[in-house]
Amino acid sequence: MKKIVLALGGNALGNTLKEQKVAVKTAAKAIVDLIEGDLEIVITHGNGPQVGMINLAMETAQKYDDSFYHIPMYTCVAMTQGYIGQDIQNAISEELAARGMSRPVATVVTQTLVDANDPAFDDPTKPIGAFYTEEEAKVLIERGEQLKEDSGRGWRHVVASPLPIDIVESSTVQVLLDAGHVPIAGGGGGIAVTKNSQGHFEGASAVVDKDFVSAKLAEILNADTLIILTAIDYAYQNFEQPNQEAIVKVDVEEAQKYVDEGHFAPGSMLPKVQAAISFAKSAPGRQAIIAKLDHAQDILTGKTGTTVVG
Amino acid sequence: MKKIVLALGGNALGNTLKEQKVAVKTAAKAIVDLIEGDLEIVITHGNGPQVGMINLAMETAQKYDDSFYHIPMYTCVAMTQGYIGQDIQNAISEELAARGMSRPVATVVTQTLVDANDPAFDDPTKPIGAFYTEEEAKVLIERGEQLKEDSGRGWRHVVASPLPIDIVESSTVQVLLDAGHVPIAGGGGGIAVTKNSQGHFEGASAVVDKDFVSAKLAEILNADTLIILTAIDYAYQNFEQPNQEAIVKVDVEEAQKYVDEGHFAPGSMLPKVQAAISFAKSAPGRQAIIAKLDHAQDILTGKTGTTVVG
Repeated sequence: MKKIVLALGGNALGNTLKEQKVAVKTAAKAIVDLIEGDLEIVITHGNGPQVGMINLAMETAQKYDDSFYHIPMYTCVAMTQGYIGQDIQNAISEELAARGMSRPVATVVTQTLVDANDPAFDDPTKPIGAFYTEEEAKVLIERGEQLKEDSGRGWRHVVASPLPIDIVESSTVQVLLDAGHVPIAGGGGGIAVTKNSQGHFEGASAVVDKDFVSAKLAEILNADTLIILTAIDYAYQNFEQPNQEAIVKVDVEEAQKYVDEGHFAPGSMLPKVQAAISFAKSAPGRQAIIAKLDHAQDILTGKTGTTVVG
Repeated sequence: MKKIVLALGGNALGNTLKEQKVAVKTAAKAIVDLIEGDLEIVITHGNGPQVGMINLAMETAQKYDDSFYHIPMYTCVAMTQGYIGQDIQNAISEELAARGMSRPVATVVTQTLVDANDPAFDDPTKPIGAFYTEEEAKVLIERGEQLKEDSGRGWRHVVASPLPIDIVESSTVQVLLDAGHVPIAGGGGGIAVTKNSQGHFEGASAVVDKDFVSAKLAEILNADTLIILTAIDYAYQNFEQPNQEAIVKVDVEEAQKYVDEGHFAPGSMLPKVQAAISFAKSAPGRQAIIAKLDHAQDILTGKTGTTVVG
């Protein structure tokens, strides 16, 4: 049976709790399309707006009531895994039931090991939470906070985004796959942890990119295909320019060339293509597909999406 | 191999994030003592202060910034499962490593099915969150909030606490147990859900008692023993009175007699004894033990703790 790691992006979750409950239903259709195709599937997902909401709510509460204490970023990520996982798994179960199918779906709280010496800790780049105007951002930056402009969409807080080295709970995900369950894992890129001198895990002030984590998990689980679902149907050369051109099927060298030429927006398409390259080149026969959420049926037949092969 | 469901109480988690990271280390020693005894173990845990903190933080943020939206109680519970689970599992892994042992430990996001017609929804009784003085409580009650006095410790918000009917992810917990993992499940009594007319799960405005959920999970998993760890070494008749007497070993009828006579504090020892009775009488040969967290080694030999047998 083919094994797939399927990464859901922001459009599969929406920006609020209400949007999430609707958006996951569309994602569930895509997921169950793939399950119907007799595939082993692991679901991963992002958590940008969600972790931003929790982080800001905790900061706001602390600002007005000093009985609240600081909640680190990795704890906020852990919180998002619980409630996003619940909504995704229930949406999948409902879609399975609607098609007369049944399969246990379960969310595994997942930690991602990163290197405490990763240079990313010196240069935070991962956008999280609310969008600000340039004026608002300047005020926050003057206050000592770290914000950057995000793909022309506005200014956002940024945190360190180190590369994943290992997925701590990968053996749990494998056990569930073997038992025919549909595991949801690596939510929000996993809870970032480093290893201290005693070999113990410690939470890290970081958010790991969910596409890189999905690629790492796919690699560890020896998956055949990594699918990164997003809001658009292809990765493009010269995106949103008159000479825009969809990238249909490329090998890792060609994909890397497009990366080097700067065709992809940081924090948006760039990590997806980098993750796709990372997985496709990790072992022979592996492929990664970047495709639109609602075209799931056509993804595996190559009718849609950007395929990166090793 | 004997199968045990081990329920951790508030003293195993502390009241804040910092306390939690310390308290789970003591809990981990007790847990690994039992794992060393070659037992299959499922960990459950409470979340009173944690879910109270998140709930209050979200309400505080919303009060001062209307860009925040209401987060339902069940979503707050889902959030606690993520971050409490992470701390418990890392503490167990560290304690295992310190003893030269290794076993995968994983947290399963867990939903608890309750009946939408449970009378508990009409009479909220479950204390959550911060303690208030009687004066403060009166102000909040006049504002329409629901608070009750909690075991002489002060006034707290109360939410509905319906009985658990089923644990949605029990098959996932079973699969992990079969694979030799140590699952953490049913955190905070599980995320309360009801079934709507279409058979879909919907989040419920409730917090299910973690002791009842532990008993239900133990029943479904066909466990031999339910252990409820708490801050004191026995359940007592006439607790904290001159004629206080430890209850060492009782059958379900005698335990029920003590319940009926009002020996146990609601929201504190009462649900523990009720959960113990519920599990002990669910099938022949089952026993439940209420005992002190740091006496784990003596629990299974009957040297400490209150044992309820079927």
